[in-house]
Amino acid sequence: MLIIGERLNGMFKRVKKAIADKNKDEILAVVQEQINDGAGMIDINVGTAAADQQGTMQWLVETVQEKYPGFPLAVDSSKVEVLEAGLKVCQNPVLINSTTAEDEKLEKLLGLAAEYKADILGLTLDENGIPSQKDERVALGAKILMMAMEMGLSPESVYLDPVVLPVKFGQDQCVGMIEAIRDIKTALNDPAPKTAVGLSNISNGVPKEMRSLVNRTYLVMCLAAGLDSAIVDPHDQELVNAMITAELLMNKQIYSDSFIKAYRAAHG
Amino acid sequence: MLIIGERLNGMFKRVKKAIADKNKDEILAVVQEQINDGAGMIDINVGTAAADQQGTMQWLVETVQEKYPGFPLAVDSSKVEVLEAGLKVCQNPVLINSTTAEDEKLEKLLGLAAEYKADILGLTLDENGIPSQKDERVALGAKILMMAMEMGLSPESVYLDPVVLPVKFGQDQCVGMIEAIRDIKTALNDPAPKTAVGLSNISNGVPKEMRSLVNRTYLVMCLAAGLDSAIVDPHDQELVNAMITAELLMNKQIYSDSFIKAYRAAHG
Repeated sequence: MLIIGERLNGMFKRVKKAIADKNKDEILAVVQEQINDGAGMIDINVGTAAADQQGTMQWLVETVQEKYPGFPLAVDSSKVEVLEAGLKVCQNPVLINSTTAEDEKLEKLLGLAAEYKADILGLTLDENGIPSQKDERVALGAKILMMAMEMGLSPESVYLDPVVLPVKFGQDQCVGMIEAIRDIKTALNDPAPKTAVGLSNISNGVPKEMRSLVNRTYLVMCLAAGLDSAIVDPHDQELVNAMITAELLMNKQIYSDSFIKAYRAAHG
Repeated sequence: MLIIGERLNGMFKRVKKAIADKNKDEILAVVQEQINDGAGMIDINVGTAAADQQGTMQWLVETVQEKYPGFPLAVDSSKVEVLEAGLKVCQNPVLINSTTAEDEKLEKLLGLAAEYKADILGLTLDENGIPSQKDERVALGAKILMMAMEMGLSPESVYLDPVVLPVKFGQDQCVGMIEAIRDIKTALNDPAPKTAVGLSNISNGVPKEMRSLVNRTYLVMCLAAGLDSAIVDPHDQELVNAMITAELLMNKQIYSDSFIKAYRAAHG
């Protein structure tokens, strides 16, 4: 599974301060630590750290790719213009995080994905919000995928995200979100699109000391359904160990008695 | 999920000694500790603790049910005569653990299940051994279920166990075992039979310090596929916490901020 590291986000104090101070070393430390812990892609999100979101996105992208040329990055914003600003300067392989299935936004962002040869993550929500039913999530995923393919994107460059809701508030949808991943992987297209989740949302509102348990348990369930990638905190060791073990049990990593160490050595 | 406690087994030194000493208090302590940690059924296995396996099985059953009348028990042996000895004296609800799909054994044990109004656990293996393919496991499960129903047992009194093999030696079958659970729950009959696994076998041969991680990860994957019960060590707190969390995420327990405590209070 691809670990998309979530820590380079302006909502975290450390990153917010580094942005304010234009402290490249601190930004690069946040990146290096995530790579050490197994991140295969770095998500870059300005958050509310700066008034000039476009300029800040560009500075972050340039800062990271100068030190890590070729390392996969995700430009992350709900604003099209911030995503586009990041794409303009990004030389590394890049994922647009994210579009929705809203017609106007989808068309605009798929156009950018085609123009910049970027992968794109699509959230299965539209003008009507997040569907409560699994089949509606899959239908919105199909819409995103079909439009992407019509615009010349390969299905494997599309990451569909069924939009994880907190168990505390959307408990009856937790199974449906997993089943949406299964359907997307088996029923939409051959080759299938990729799947992704913003994992930590599952435990929003859960007492702090139990969030990791909820996150890693849900991640294992999603992996068993065919999940390809997740935006997570790579520093949560128990989460990553659970992921490695689930992949072992799915026969995606050859067994050895030191399978955790072997994985970390290969991916760190 | 029903936790079938595995600790009252003559292969453990403590139990072997208690059997040799005819120490009822120690046997009952082994039972009480498991109930405290959430076991909803106690598996009773003489193992190699005594030459007189039939007499020892009877003594264990009588010792436990005298203190815990009405508490579900599983009589566990590969020998029909040991199972029958236990059934003869058992007043509590009881599960026969186990039959296979071998014709002679299956007919004999289904007859005992009908006679003693016992539930029965069927392993999906036969004269040819354990099938390597998922569909063959399901087919043997179907054979056990059909014969049970022909003999008047209800489908819900049948527990089908796809026979968990160690990841170390049967890594390519780990997914198939999970998919067998899914098929058994969705494709065999309505109402469906129950499913069970002897969980710890998945980590046989795995270094000791990683066994719990492998066990609980696989349990979560099995639960997501519809697993009803597992023979496990209820004292493995991380295993039980993972199980509780998976059930929460499957909407089988109502969310509360103290969902672990709430579950343990209700089941301990």
